[in-house]
Amino acid sequence: MAEPLPDLIEEFVTDGMGDDPASILTALSGQDTVYIASLLESLPLERRLVVWEGIPRDRKLSVLVEMRSDPREILIDATPHNEWASIFADIDAEDLLELLDSLPTRLVDVAYEALDSQERKYFREATQFPDEQVGHWVSHELLVLPANAKVKEGLRLLRRDIPQHCDSIYLVNRSGQFTALVKIHRLFAAQEHSSLISMAEENVTMLVGTDESTAASLQVQRSGLSSLPVVDESNKLIGRLDIASASELMNEFYERQVMASAGMDEDEDLFSPVAKSARNRALWLGINLLTAFLASWFIGLFEATLQQVVALAVLMPVVASMGGIAGSQTLTLIVRGLALGQVTPANLRALMMKELKVGGLNGVIWALVIGIVAYFWFADALLGMVICLAILFNIVAAALAGVFVPFILDRLKIDPALSGSVILTTVTDIVGFVAFLGLGTLFLL
Amino acid sequence: MAEPLPDLIEEFVTDGMGDDPASILTALSGQDTVYIASLLESLPLERRLVVWEGIPRDRKLSVLVEMRSDPREILIDATPHNEWASIFADIDAEDLLELLDSLPTRLVDVAYEALDSQERKYFREATQFPDEQVGHWVSHELLVLPANAKVKEGLRLLRRDIPQHCDSIYLVNRSGQFTALVKIHRLFAAQEHSSLISMAEENVTMLVGTDESTAASLQVQRSGLSSLPVVDESNKLIGRLDIASASELMNEFYERQVMASAGMDEDEDLFSPVAKSARNRALWLGINLLTAFLASWFIGLFEATLQQVVALAVLMPVVASMGGIAGSQTLTLIVRGLALGQVTPANLRALMMKELKVGGLNGVIWALVIGIVAYFWFADALLGMVICLAILFNIVAAALAGVFVPFILDRLKIDPALSGSVILTTVTDIVGFVAFLGLGTLFLL
Repeated sequence: MAEPLPDLIEEFVTDGMGDDPASILTALSGQDTVYIASLLESLPLERRLVVWEGIPRDRKLSVLVEMRSDPREILIDATPHNEWASIFADIDAEDLLELLDSLPTRLVDVAYEALDSQERKYFREATQFPDEQVGHWVSHELLVLPANAKVKEGLRLLRRDIPQHCDSIYLVNRSGQFTALVKIHRLFAAQEHSSLISMAEENVTMLVGTDESTAASLQVQRSGLSSLPVVDESNKLIGRLDIASASELMNEFYERQVMASAGMDEDEDLFSPVAKSARNRALWLGINLLTAFLASWFIGLFEATLQQVVALAVLMPVVASMGGIAGSQTLTLIVRGLALGQVTPANLRALMMKELKVGGLNGVIWALVIGIVAYFWFADALLGMVICLAILFNIVAAALAGVFVPFILDRLKIDPALSGSVILTTVTDIVGFVAFLGLGTLFLL
Repeated sequence: MAEPLPDLIEEFVTDGMGDDPASILTALSGQDTVYIASLLESLPLERRLVVWEGIPRDRKLSVLVEMRSDPREILIDATPHNEWASIFADIDAEDLLELLDSLPTRLVDVAYEALDSQERKYFREATQFPDEQVGHWVSHELLVLPANAKVKEGLRLLRRDIPQHCDSIYLVNRSGQFTALVKIHRLFAAQEHSSLISMAEENVTMLVGTDESTAASLQVQRSGLSSLPVVDESNKLIGRLDIASASELMNEFYERQVMASAGMDEDEDLFSPVAKSARNRALWLGINLLTAFLASWFIGLFEATLQQVVALAVLMPVVASMGGIAGSQTLTLIVRGLALGQVTPANLRALMMKELKVGGLNGVIWALVIGIVAYFWFADALLGMVICLAILFNIVAAALAGVFVPFILDRLKIDPALSGSVILTTVTDIVGFVAFLGLGTLFLL
């Protein structure tokens, strides 16, 4: 059984295991590839390279395939050129597709040379689809028979090695078009001479190579089958998407959403080199700096007011923060709905009305609370009224922005999980500061 | 094939379909249960209830099982009491477990009465595990044989109905302990009189009922098998976790992370009643208000400074925002690492060093940029120096907080995805304001 990951990490970081290749080999020999990949991602750079060297060459390919791109690239860069021929000895098209973005061109060539002609064809076919489409991720390990095949032929096929997560035989016609799917366990109860097609499943979903890969993965997860057939635009069978690949694609989709909220991508390395990590994150800091300066510029318009009523400066963060939080709640809900196909032009108006009401209700309640606190804090009823109105106004604006910002970004094919929160908080900051300082100028001077 | 969800939504919202039960029935009859569940979640409350009434009673249970708790509860509340006997007619333990949190006690009793004695036993066993443990989610549809069974007996078993996502026969000894796993497709090539155990898989991972359900789900997704056996503490087989359930648990885990970042949970309803939604979100707004007031209180300590140097008030949001963004990048990376078991006490120190260096590098760069902008904007070199130092200080503090806040929360068994960002931004706001206004008081007065 697999040793829990944290123990493995401790062994390799703290206990100094891995200083000699023999001990690394022993410690890792019983471990799943997935755990070794995860261990490598969890090790500081120096240790990571030492352990990588200790991994036998015939396991290195499968370990690389399981890793995230950023930590993987560190290992690829550190591997001597003369090792690659043996690492790539058993590579297939799927492995190469998985590594494609991480390999320098000259190594892609080495790997491509190692493929046999069939795998080269699969590789070329897959790269015709971009990686957001399911055609890119298709598996070619299939059980296929002609549409008129008998149970006997099915049984002969099943005596051979069965691919992982393959619970069905696919039937195709003479043009190679997908016709039907027969679950292999049906053959246990079948007569040798009956036709396979007579025991086919009904209502099987076919995926098309150009289908968006997240939507296709969800369909596989919900199908009750181990994989769904993938066809081209003329219904020709090109492969299948199995539930393990579908789950990996879904996990990556969700990780991308989580990481995007902080302006990073799912391949970010826990221990990436400092310069690289700083560069990756600098862009996001820069964009946010621009929006922060924009907000400051708006505050600057009210310098005279701030000079006279310094309480406004003290309370500014409260107005901005409440708008930002309220807006990001709406935003998060809508971004999820968009990703799942549940938010559409048809129900947008109803959603906006509901969010406006929720915003209005919470706006009134918290505006009153904050108004009263401000009144007692600064002993100034007018100040209380000003902040009360500003909060109400900002929370309602936040609800509107929370619905429309992600919706419009989605229409423009910009990922709302990535850009939504920056734009939203820019809106709520500016609306909040202008409302608060504007009302302050009107009533408090 | 299933109609894409957005079209379905449009049909039911805009085109006014669903005003009479017959048209609902027709429109939904060819649809998968999953799509109907998702459609209901996407409909405004009034339409949702109309469509729900039009769904045939014998499909209602499976639709409810596929829905999120919050939208589901709306439908449960609206269903007349006399319908439940027929809705629950075919309920099993797994359905009831899925619905458990959404049903009022009296309906749990009705459903429990509808279970046969075997399913009641399963239900009671499962509820002994909390829902964070895999024992709660175990499936009891198994292919089980005694450890000394022959292929012949296996074949007899396989002629019956095979459960979904079940690719193996589990062998147990006389005490019911799990002994081995045989893939069913091996039986196609086997002799009738050979023993099953001779063709068992090696190194099969057994899950224990008390295993954390996310970790267990990941193990199933990575196992290459359609399901893994689940045993109790004495290795007695209690069921299995299949890859479809594992994927659902993983999807829920990730959704929880995404929603938690805005203080909501994954069951939040797109169209929940306004009062309920406002209440759900009010707590989060309240907590954030407290932290915003805390930040304001610290600003208030520098009222005299702000009155004299109003530029400080104008630039305050820049200092707070840069710290918040830098910190949330580190936080997001660490929260993911904690969730995947990749961040442990063993590599924490190395992580902190790396994040400090990244923070230091980005801190220096952006501090200089901001310092120069501030210098030109306000024609004040000292102000430029003050904000430069404050930014550098805050970004480094943000890196530290981004590592330690989630790590400590995790040790305290508090979900860092939920509370991490509030605590982090409180730290960066306060550090930022105090550093900036404090340095301003020292150098600018």
